[in-house]
Amino acid sequence: MLAEIITIGDELLIGQVIDTNSAFIAKQLNKIGVSVYQITSVQDEKEHILKAMNEAENRADIIILTGGLGPTKDDITKKTIAEYFDDVLVKNDAVLENIESIWKQHVRTRLLQVNRDQALIPSKSKPLMNTLGTAPGMWMEKGEKVFVSLPGVPYEMQALVENEMLPKLKEKYHCPYILHRTLMVYGLGESDLAERIEPWENELPKHIKLAYLPNLGQMRLRLSTRGFDEVLLKKEVEEQINKVLPYIKDEFAGFEDDEGSVEIVIAKQLTKMGKTLAIAESCTGGGVAERFTVNSGASAFFKGGVVCYATQSKINVLNVPKSLIEAHSVVSSQVAEAMAENALNLFQSDYAIATTGNAGPTKGDSDAEVGAVFVAIATKKGIYSQKFNFGNLRLKVINKAINKALEMLLKEIFKNT
Amino acid sequence: MLAEIITIGDELLIGQVIDTNSAFIAKQLNKIGVSVYQITSVQDEKEHILKAMNEAENRADIIILTGGLGPTKDDITKKTIAEYFDDVLVKNDAVLENIESIWKQHVRTRLLQVNRDQALIPSKSKPLMNTLGTAPGMWMEKGEKVFVSLPGVPYEMQALVENEMLPKLKEKYHCPYILHRTLMVYGLGESDLAERIEPWENELPKHIKLAYLPNLGQMRLRLSTRGFDEVLLKKEVEEQINKVLPYIKDEFAGFEDDEGSVEIVIAKQLTKMGKTLAIAESCTGGGVAERFTVNSGASAFFKGGVVCYATQSKINVLNVPKSLIEAHSVVSSQVAEAMAENALNLFQSDYAIATTGNAGPTKGDSDAEVGAVFVAIATKKGIYSQKFNFGNLRLKVINKAINKALEMLLKEIFKNT
Repeated sequence: MLAEIITIGDELLIGQVIDTNSAFIAKQLNKIGVSVYQITSVQDEKEHILKAMNEAENRADIIILTGGLGPTKDDITKKTIAEYFDDVLVKNDAVLENIESIWKQHVRTRLLQVNRDQALIPSKSKPLMNTLGTAPGMWMEKGEKVFVSLPGVPYEMQALVENEMLPKLKEKYHCPYILHRTLMVYGLGESDLAERIEPWENELPKHIKLAYLPNLGQMRLRLSTRGFDEVLLKKEVEEQINKVLPYIKDEFAGFEDDEGSVEIVIAKQLTKMGKTLAIAESCTGGGVAERFTVNSGASAFFKGGVVCYATQSKINVLNVPKSLIEAHSVVSSQVAEAMAENALNLFQSDYAIATTGNAGPTKGDSDAEVGAVFVAIATKKGIYSQKFNFGNLRLKVINKAINKALEMLLKEIFKNT
Repeated sequence: MLAEIITIGDELLIGQVIDTNSAFIAKQLNKIGVSVYQITSVQDEKEHILKAMNEAENRADIIILTGGLGPTKDDITKKTIAEYFDDVLVKNDAVLENIESIWKQHVRTRLLQVNRDQALIPSKSKPLMNTLGTAPGMWMEKGEKVFVSLPGVPYEMQALVENEMLPKLKEKYHCPYILHRTLMVYGLGESDLAERIEPWENELPKHIKLAYLPNLGQMRLRLSTRGFDEVLLKKEVEEQINKVLPYIKDEFAGFEDDEGSVEIVIAKQLTKMGKTLAIAESCTGGGVAERFTVNSGASAFFKGGVVCYATQSKINVLNVPKSLIEAHSVVSSQVAEAMAENALNLFQSDYAIATTGNAGPTKGDSDAEVGAVFVAIATKKGIYSQKFNFGNLRLKVINKAINKALEMLLKEIFKNT
């Protein structure tokens, strides 16, 4: 079963908005056995949308459109869909009722005609009820093919995908099982890793696909396969993982969770152990804390963090001794370790991470070269730190520092398990 | 001049990686007068890439490919490009030299054959020298059309776009001027805004395109146009802005900067005024701080922040009185204001923002309903806060709270200007 995703909106093509919807939809489709063949972003322009729909229909079984369903004049997806299906827009009473109820609940002013008009949908389509916004999703069938139109607002789209689209697709199609397993590997470059595991890779069965995903100091190695025998596929992939692990036993840092990140693996383990975390950040500026707090359940283990951007803040807020900073400079292992230790004490946590460095482009409150970063870990048993140089591109330095801090924490947490 | 972007990689189509490269490239191309007609994401699969190249060539003048240039077996873009141009891969000495120099500088182990092989490029292509990684960019011409192949690693791609691709495109083509101006509007829904400005929108000249971009409590209104007379276009758009502003004078919050965000507008203004900022976050978990610190120059105004996730941390780190929390609960205007005031004092800043709320999905350390958020602003002149309810979706609550905190700060900063 093949799907294509068409994302609609000029804002995507001028780079004003990053398309995060496609990745979400693709991940969800994979979970029910639907593969995404292609993702296409097109303009809010009738002919362009029609052409993209036609091309997608020739390649895929399921065509998913997002965007262009708003109440304003620049949103033309619905009219265009009606034209594609040689159909007309008609008022749908259930949709209108839903719009009125949302309006009452959230807006509390009179309902405008443009929002009433959002209840107009192609006569041949079935509405997918959007309980979070006024734009309905739509489900259209054409022979064996399905077209789904979803609003572009991410959380509205997400709810419609999970509550409406996936159940209906599962009901309609008999899909295979798609399996992805991703190994996180630290401390090896892409080509070194490839050379190391080459004997294994050469023997990998053709139906298991291997991908290398380098990401700022972290490598991910993904095995993907699909088929109808879930038990067999899982067994085959586990066997391959058991074969490759001996090649990378010192660098292997765990499996990426289904939801995709090392911070989720850490969060689950800390919660399981009943241990807590505090974070003291300088150069990473809140980025480490944010990686944890966007996920629900963070309050189970995350005590809090301090972003000590200015040197004075490290003294006032984190109680790093001024003399220590003067003796070693603010970007130093001593200051990183003091930050971690003081965060541990201040937040009364079991683990603490600290980062201090110079992300550039210019030198800050220290003489450290641009790209120099110290990461420290403190536990009740001890404190240690490591020095890195992450080059001279600000975002690269910040993100490599975040990744490295997470890597060190991951290793520390799993050390005794 | 029309461009198309083809992003290559299975990781995009299974939703493991979000495509941020396309938005960056599109934005840069717009700056030199090149419009992006379509963005297409395809698999690491020869026939698929060939077909996408062929279709793009029929629609656009400039075809930009990213991804699939790594040293490992799953990366097949280079071979596929050679096949498309009926060409062969040959060793390029300058590229090899560059690879050897990068290797010496950053890796320090022996150079592997797979990395040496990255110096193989199609004989008809010109290399674009990648000073940050071993995968070269490539420039190919076919009649009047240009194909550019870039690595998928974002910072390598970005440097090649800015230093190599854009200058060469500017040299080759005489491009029009593309103008986007985006007004940030707070406190009006999409349809209310549309109704309000309808008389103006109806009179808008056809060559100026209007777009509504709703984003979690913030509306953006974008005017776009293009042509060869830069001065005239700017004048026309300014005239339209002057006409629309009276309709939204209470809700207009400023222009979005070229680089695209309210935090950059705040950062510039604070730096200009020589004022500083501190942030105390609970439910936003470091997200407000991170919005500022990812941009360079943050150290000029950002003193630091505290993420007080656990209630105990609010007491220990931010010195919020335990009695205040007991009397009003941790999610309250009193606690939000105490957090802001104490952050102002602790970090010795001119402005402080604080957030406290319940992002859900379950209730945390307070009895506040899920979605309830208090945002407080402290300055040396006073402290105030506002209560919001942002619904029951965690990411929506967090991001609306971040947006609202930035909005309140923006208004506070510009109040006396």
